[in-house]
This record gives sequence, C-alpha cells and structure tokens, in this order.
Amino acid sequence: MFDIEFTGTGNAGQVPVWGCQCKACLRAIAIPAQRRAPCSLAIRTSLGITLLDAGRTDLAERYAFDDIHRIVLTHFHMDHVQGLFHLRWSEREEKIPVFRPDDPAGADDLYKHPGVLTFQPPFTPFQPVMWEDFTLTPLPLQHSKVTLGYLLEKDDFRIAYLTDTVGLPAKTEVFLSNLSPGTLDYLIIDCSEPPRDIPPKNHNDVNMVLRIHQQLRPKKMILTHISHRLDCWLIDNPHAIPDNFIIAYDGMIISAP
Amino acid sequence: MFDIEFTGTGNAGQVPVWGCQCKACLRAIAIPAQRRAPCSLAIRTSLGITLLDAGRTDLAERYAFDDIHRIVLTHFHMDHVQGLFHLRWSEREEKIPVFRPDDPAGADDLYKHPGVLTFQPPFTPFQPVMWEDFTLTPLPLQHSKVTLGYLLEKDDFRIAYLTDTVGLPAKTEVFLSNLSPGTLDYLIIDCSEPPRDIPPKNHNDVNMVLRIHQQLRPKKMILTHISHRLDCWLIDNPHAIPDNFIIAYDGMIISAP
Ligand SMILES: [Mn+2]
Ligand SMILES: [Mn+2]
Ligand SMILES: [Mn+2]
Ligand SMILES: [Mn+2]
Ligand SMILES: [Zn+2]
Ligand SMILES: [Zn+2]
Repeated sequence: MFDIEFTGTGNAGQVPVWGCQCKACLRAIAIPAQRRAPCSLAIRTSLGITLLDAGRTDLAERYAFDDIHRIVLTHFHMDHVQGLFHLRWSEREEKIPVFRPDDPAGADDLYKHPGVLTFQPPFTPFQPVMWEDFTLTPLPLQHSKVTLGYLLEKDDFRIAYLTDTVGLPAKTEVFLSNLSPGTLDYLIIDCSEPPRDIPPKNHNDVNMVLRIHQQLRPKKMILTHISHRLDCWLIDNPHAIPDNFIIAYDGMIISAP
Repeated sequence: MFDIEFTGTGNAGQVPVWGCQCKACLRAIAIPAQRRAPCSLAIRTSLGITLLDAGRTDLAERYAFDDIHRIVLTHFHMDHVQGLFHLRWSEREEKIPVFRPDDPAGADDLYKHPGVLTFQPPFTPFQPVMWEDFTLTPLPLQHSKVTLGYLLEKDDFRIAYLTDTVGLPAKTEVFLSNLSPGTLDYLIIDCSEPPRDIPPKNHNDVNMVLRIHQQLRPKKMILTHISHRLDCWLIDNPHAIPDNFIIAYDGMIISAP
C-alpha cells in the first residue's frame, strides 16, 4: 500500500483568501471542494501515515495519534509547520520522529518545546533513506528558507515532490535528469503563480513549470501550492495547460499501481 | 452593545489533547461543546469585533474581513497568535490594527511579513486607551513572555482579562485593588491547573486563583485557559469551586447590562 493524499494544495494565503471576492475565492466559498488548505501530503503505507508537511491546523482531528508513523518537513515556513504547534502537546509516551532540512532555527519555539515530537538530525541532500515502507531521497530546492523536496520510491513507482521552490538548483535538476527516462511517474511541483514576464522570487509560475517539464519529462506533472491568482487564470484559460498536467485539488489521491 | 464571547477557553494543548484518553478528553471527543479551543475572546461592539488574542486557526471562516475592527494580543505565544499566520495574507486594501505588549521579537516572521495587519506601537502599562467603543487599560502579568492582561470598561461595566499568568505582579494587584470595591464585574483569569502543592511556573492553579479572589473580591470570577488536567479535577470535584466562580466554556457570552 502506497497512497498519497493531497491534504492541501494551496499557498500560505490558501483559497479562499480572507476577504477576497475574486471568482476563484467566491467559487471556493461556495464549493468547499474547491478550497485549498496549506500545501501538504499524507502518505499511507502499511506502517501508517507519513505526514509530508504539517500546515493544516486540524491534524489532531483528522488523524488519531497512533495513525501517524512519522512527519517529514520540506521547510520551516509557517504554512508548512503551523499544525505542529498543537500536535506537540500530546502527552503520549511514544514520540513521533520529525525529519527535516538543515534549518537550525526551525520555527518559533518548536525546537525549544518539541513535546511529543522528536526532531531528527537533518537529512543529507541526495542521500537516499531506505525506510521499511518506501525510500526517500532529499533534493535541495530554491527558496527563501533552506528547503528540501523529496523523491519517493516504492518498488518501481517514483514520485518527486518539489515545493516550495522557484526553478530547481542545478544539482537537483541533474539528479532528476539522470533518472532513467520514463521512470518518473509523477513530478509534483510548486506552481503558485500564473505566467509572469518576470518569474516570482520564491515560487514557480506556469512558465517555469513548463520549462522544468521540458527538462525532466515525467510521465505526469501535478501542479500544487496554488494561489487564488493561478486559480483565476485557470478559470480564464481552461485549455492552457498541457494534457499530461494535472491541477492538484485537496483530497486528491494517487497510488502506486 | 458590548458582548464578550469566549471563543476559546483552553490552554495550548487544547481539550481534547491529541491522543489523550482521560475522561475530560473522551468527554470532549464525544461532546464538541466540551472542547476547548485556544484561549481567546471576541468582543462585539457597535464598531465591530475586537479579537482578543488569535489562537484559533479558523478565524477566516468565522469572521468576515469587514467584521474585524481591531486585534488585541496578550502575548506572542503561538497558542495566542497562530491564527494570524493565515489572516495576514488577506489582500484587502484596508489594514487591521494589531495592539500588543512590548515584545520586539513577536512570533516567527509576523513582524517581517505583517501583510494586512499593522502592528501598533506597544501599549504602555496602566495607561488607559479610550477607544470609541470601550476603554482598555493594559495590566502587566507574570509569564514566560512579556504579557499584558486588560481591564475593559464600558460605561460602568468592568471586566479584567488576566491570562496567561501565574499570580499577579504587585503593581497590577495594587491597580486592581484600588478599583472602588464591588465595581469589578468579572475577573477572567488563567486557571490552567488543578490545586498543586507547588504552584506551576507560568500559569495559575486553583490555589493561586482562590488567593487572587480573596485579594481582589470581584463580583464574579471566570476561570479560563483550562487544561485537560483541570477539567478532570473538576469532574472529580464538582463542588470544589465557590459559587461565584464560573468555569468558562467555548461559546460562552457575557454582556454589559
Ligand atoms: Mn508554502
Ligand atoms: Mn515557503
Ligand atoms: Mn496560553
Ligand atoms: Mn503563554
Ligand atoms: Zn481571491
Ligand atoms: Zn486528556
């Protein structure tokens, strides 16, 4: 079993953005399924659930303590860790390991008061970690905080989860290009913004994502970390996205065959 | 109009505590009305809503942008500000003033990326602020971060909101004792823990609260910032609390007569 649920596909502002009346936000207010929670995954395997980022703030209601096997973080921006500030206060004996990039600051007082969470030594970029239920390779990204994307492999099913980032560092691009062609099943990538003349500072726009797609040629591209601006652009340009691109939505699930 | 809603009456762990099976937490799981969200108030006046602390993380769903007139913070612990990390990303022109104690660090990157929030110069302790809808006097408290409680006055209706704190600094105690007797309608106070031999470090236990009650003699005491430990103790000791003490609950509302 290797099911990946998109528990959040939005950027820090989420969709709807508070107080916004644009068509994407009005749509999201009217149709809850069109809302976008903070960008995150829940990976379900035989060992339980791996939370990939923890920006949702209802995690204690969604998941029983015993269901959560481990937590993996891409980076310590609040929209990716804010859910931990409640979970940490569990008083259970067993601790939950939290894997992370090499960010000595963490977020607010998380390291000072980890509670039930045990922050593991930082990952080493490009060094695969062979867990019992799947293998994970940390891939450095390009962002305003030290950030790791991840290659997830289960038997010959391969998924790259690359957010938050603008473009890709050369080494990460080379690493992914060296994967034998046609073996990257899904490239899930930060696509916060609609096409821009000047690329955004810390996130991809559609143009950047199209370029990355050209370079890496995954079987499928999944766009996530979506702002209400991109949602508006997608409403106005329903056919602007190539066929093998998938616009992620909260609750979407992809599984190893 | 001067209605005070207890939007949260719990401590940082909230009730239920994640993964806890104590009777208070099992009760809260079974009966949502017995749950305790992060300790906070929403004060509704003719000008709109004043949020007193912002630890709830569903504020964007509970309140329309135009309803929020201002935000007042007691201190920058995450369970009192975490809701701001979403609200700030509103893209509305109008800004929301945020009043606060003199904490130069704030929380995580709130000061660096305030977004739609405008952090006001810190309050001066004991200096009343005469807003159009009510008067507020900041009262220093005793906690692990610089913290302000508040005396709220509307005509001759007076409420003191004192959390998070363990005991009271002498000056604050003198200030409140100097209020003419019988004019403090409600003293709302941090009562996180059941009676302890040794008082907790940063929060009151029942013994501390009883002592403060003796000194200040408000018409009514309201206990808030309640942990699942206190809830368990209250279940076991239903008559241990004096009559004019009220155990706050989420959703409780008190109003100026
Ligand atoms: Mn993000
Ligand atoms: Mn980020
Ligand atoms: Mn607190
Ligand atoms: Mn506190
Ligand atoms: Zn919008
Ligand atoms: Zn409990």
